[in-house]
Amino acid sequence: MAKAELDHFFRPESIAIIGASSTPGKVGYNFMANLVASSFPHEIYPVNPGFKEIMGIRVYEGIKDVPKTPDLAIIAVSQSLVPSILLRCADKGIKAVIISSAGFGDDGQEGKKLERDIVEIAKKRGMRIIGPNTQGLINPDRKLALISTSPKPLAKIIEGRVSYICQTAFFYWDWIINNTSLGLSKAVDLGNMCDVNHSEVLDYLGSDPKTQVLSLHIEGLRDGAGFVKTATKVTRQKPVIVLKAGRSVEGARAIASHTGSLAGKDETYDAAFKQAGIIRAADMDELIDLTKTFAYLPALPTGNRVGIITFSGAAGSLAADACAESNLRLAKFSKATINKMSQIFPSWASAKNPMDVFQIVTINAKAVHSAALESLSTDPNLDAILIVAMTVSTAPEFNPVDVLREYAEKGIRKPTVVCGLRDEEGLKQLVSLESRGLLTYSSIRRAAKALAASYHRYRYLNS
Amino acid sequence: MAKAELDHFFRPESIAIIGASSTPGKVGYNFMANLVASSFPHEIYPVNPGFKEIMGIRVYEGIKDVPKTPDLAIIAVSQSLVPSILLRCADKGIKAVIISSAGFGDDGQEGKKLERDIVEIAKKRGMRIIGPNTQGLINPDRKLALISTSPKPLAKIIEGRVSYICQTAFFYWDWIINNTSLGLSKAVDLGNMCDVNHSEVLDYLGSDPKTQVLSLHIEGLRDGAGFVKTATKVTRQKPVIVLKAGRSVEGARAIASHTGSLAGKDETYDAAFKQAGIIRAADMDELIDLTKTFAYLPALPTGNRVGIITFSGAAGSLAADACAESNLRLAKFSKATINKMSQIFPSWASAKNPMDVFQIVTINAKAVHSAALESLSTDPNLDAILIVAMTVSTAPEFNPVDVLREYAEKGIRKPTVVCGLRDEEGLKQLVSLESRGLLTYSSIRRAAKALAASYHRYRYLNS
Repeated sequence: MAKAELDHFFRPESIAIIGASSTPGKVGYNFMANLVASSFPHEIYPVNPGFKEIMGIRVYEGIKDVPKTPDLAIIAVSQSLVPSILLRCADKGIKAVIISSAGFGDDGQEGKKLERDIVEIAKKRGMRIIGPNTQGLINPDRKLALISTSPKPLAKIIEGRVSYICQTAFFYWDWIINNTSLGLSKAVDLGNMCDVNHSEVLDYLGSDPKTQVLSLHIEGLRDGAGFVKTATKVTRQKPVIVLKAGRSVEGARAIASHTGSLAGKDETYDAAFKQAGIIRAADMDELIDLTKTFAYLPALPTGNRVGIITFSGAAGSLAADACAESNLRLAKFSKATINKMSQIFPSWASAKNPMDVFQIVTINAKAVHSAALESLSTDPNLDAILIVAMTVSTAPEFNPVDVLREYAEKGIRKPTVVCGLRDEEGLKQLVSLESRGLLTYSSIRRAAKALAASYHRYRYLNS
Repeated sequence: MAKAELDHFFRPESIAIIGASSTPGKVGYNFMANLVASSFPHEIYPVNPGFKEIMGIRVYEGIKDVPKTPDLAIIAVSQSLVPSILLRCADKGIKAVIISSAGFGDDGQEGKKLERDIVEIAKKRGMRIIGPNTQGLINPDRKLALISTSPKPLAKIIEGRVSYICQTAFFYWDWIINNTSLGLSKAVDLGNMCDVNHSEVLDYLGSDPKTQVLSLHIEGLRDGAGFVKTATKVTRQKPVIVLKAGRSVEGARAIASHTGSLAGKDETYDAAFKQAGIIRAADMDELIDLTKTFAYLPALPTGNRVGIITFSGAAGSLAADACAESNLRLAKFSKATINKMSQIFPSWASAKNPMDVFQIVTINAKAVHSAALESLSTDPNLDAILIVAMTVSTAPEFNPVDVLREYAEKGIRKPTVVCGLRDEEGLKQLVSLESRGLLTYSSIRRAAKALAASYHRYRYLNS
C-alpha cells in the first residue's frame, strides 16, 4: 500500500507540472528543464494558462485539460492558489502531488492554516503530498529529476547506492551535486513534511534493492515512534546515517521558522537514535564521511585494533591520538610483520606501530610502501589499517598513490582508510580509488572517526 | 644575544652544505636545488669529496677547504659521521649548524648517545644546532629555502605574515606548500630539538616585524617553564596557535620514537597553554582555520552576538546549532535592520536571525543579498556575521560571490566569516576574498569555531 503510493512519486510514468514556465530562473522553468534534461522517457504535461508550448512540449490551460490522469503532479504556483489547484488535481483523479511552493507551515499563522487546509484536502480525497516547501526528488534509475533549482549541475549526477532523505535544498546543493563520485540511488526533499514523512520514505527506500546506504537530514519528526520502529528494522539491513538539526535552543527555534517542524529535545532524539541503531552525524562533514564509508568500505572491521602506516612521524603521533580519541586501539604487529619489515628497514628504523615509512623513502620507496601494505593487510593482529599517505612525491619517479592503487586493485583484505595531504592533485588521485574500497578523508581525525563508526556498526549488527 | 644566534639561521649570508649531491632524490641534492631555486643571493659552499661541481657551483672536499667561515652549515650525511663533521665545523669557526640527518634521539639508545655527543660538542665549542632530524627552514624575505625535500613545490610559496615552528616535515607538506594563499613569513622544523628549542624561536619570531601570527606544532617541550614565560609575553602582541600532539598515551609513545621528545601529561600542557594565552588547536584542520583567521580577520569581535545570513533554512538551523556549541549568541536584529529588510522581503518572509535569503533569490537576488550584508554590518546589536553562502547561482546572471566581493572591497566593518558549498569552483572564488578579510571555512561548524576563537582572543587581550 505505502509502497504503491510512494511509487507514484519515485516511479511515475506521467507527470503534470502545474505552473510550468519558459522563463529561466522561475521554479516552473527549472522543473521543466531538469525533467527534460534528465531524458525522462514518459509523458510530461506542463500546465499554465499563459503558455502554448514550453521546450517543444504542449502546455495545457488547466489540469482538467490534460488528456489522461498523470501519476504525479508538481505544483509550483503562489501558495494562496495551492488549495484550489489541489482540489482540481483531486477531481482529475491524481493520487500524488509534490508541492514546491513555500509560505505554509514555514510562515506564521496564516501559512500554518493554509497547510492544514491542504492536508485536509489530501486526506479527504485520498491523495499523498510531498512538501510543501520542497526542492523535489531525483531517481536516476528512472531518469527522473524533479528538481526546482537550476538544471546545470544535475548533469554531473551518476547512479549509485546511496539514498538521501532530507528536509531542505541545502543537501541537494552542498552534497548531492558536489559528491557526484559517490553516486545517487534516490534523493528526496520532504520540505515541511505535511504528509509523506521520514518513516514512510525510510521504509520504502529500506526495501529498495538499489539503495544500500541511507543518509538522512532531519529537522523534526512527525511520527517519532513510527520512525524509530521503521529505523530499527531498516538498520539491521542497511546503515542509516542521520544529521539531526536543532541540537540547541537557537537551532530548534530556527527550524520552527524554516519547515515549521518542532525539533523536540535533543537528548530524546539521541537516545531513540541509539536504540534504533542509527548512526548519528555531528555535522555535514561527518555525514559525508560516514555515508561514503558505508557505501564503499568492502567490509566492516571486526575489532578495534588499528595498524597505522605513515610517511611522517608527526602524523603518526597525531594518528595515534586520533585513534585513542575514537576508542580504537593501536595494534601490536605480529612477528611476521616485524620480521618482514626489518629486512627492508635500515637498522635505525623499526617496525613499530605507527609504522613510519618516511625515512625510508629515499632508500627504496616503492618496496617499503608495498611491503608495509602487504604485511599489515595479512597481519592477524590487526582489524583495520589507517594510512597517512604522502601524495607529493619525494623521490623521483615514485608516486605513493601508485602503490595504493595497486593495493586497491588487488582487492582490499582489511578495512583501510586513507588521509592524504592537503594538495588538490594528490587528493583527486586518492579519491579515484574510493570506488575500489580505499576511502580517503580530509584529515587524520576524520579517518579515525569513520573507522570507529564502521566498527561500531559491526558491533551493532553482532549484538 | 639569542637574536644574533638565531640570525645565523634565519639570515645567513653564506651557507655550507655538507653532503651536497648532484643525485636527484638525495637530501644533499634537495638542499642544493631548493637554495638555488629560491635565488639565494649570497655564497653557497657545497662540500662533498665525491664532486667537483654541483649545479654550476664549485664543490669543496672538506669544510676546512671553504675559503671563508660560513654563517651557517647544513649537515646532510649519515648520522655516524655527524660528530666528526661537527667538530670540523667548530674548527672552522662556524656558529650555527642545521643537522638534517635522522637516527639520533629518534632511534633507540645508540641514537640517544649520539645526540648527547653532538650537544656536548656544540656546548663546548659555542655552536648552536637546529635538529637533528629536521627538514630545515624557510625565510622568503631572505630568499632562503633550506629544505631537504623535493624542490618543486617551493615555487608556490609567497611571502606573508604567518610563521611556523614545528617538529616535523609533515607541516611543511600538509600545510605550508598547500596553503600558499596565506603566505609565509618564516618556517622552521626543529626536529629532535637537541638545542635550539620552541621558546627561543618563539621569542625570536615574536620580535620579528614580518611575523604577525605564530603557528606551532609541538611534540614535546625541552624547557616548559621558559616556553610558558616567553609565550605569555608574545601572546600579548601576536596570536600564538598550538597543535600539541601526544594527547593520548599512544600518541605520546609514538612521539618518543619520532623525535625522542617526552610528551608529558596533556592536562599539564592544557593548563599551561591557557595561562599563557595560547590558542590550542585540536587538529590540523583547526590549526589551519585559526591561523588563517588571525592572519586575515581585520578586527576581533568585541562580543559574542552573531548575525547569520543563509541561503538555506536548513543551513540556518545548523549554523544556530554551531554557534550555540561554540558559546556564541544569536543576535536580536535592530529595528533598523528589520525595517530595511521588511521593505525588500515579501510578506511571507521575515528578517529573523538566522536571516534566510534563499526564498527571495528568485525575486531580486542581488538587492536582497546586498541589503542583508549592509544592514547586518551596521547593526549595533551584532558583533560578528556568519554567512552561509550560495556559491552556485540559482538565478540567471546572478553570482552571490559577486555580492560578497563588493562587500569585502568596500572594507569590512564587522568581523565576518563565510562558509560556502562543497563545490570546488565556488570555494576558489570565496578563498580569493580572504586576503581582503572575508574568511571562508569548509563547514559551518568550523566557521563558528573560528569566530569563537577570535572573540576569545579579544577577551584575553582585554582581561
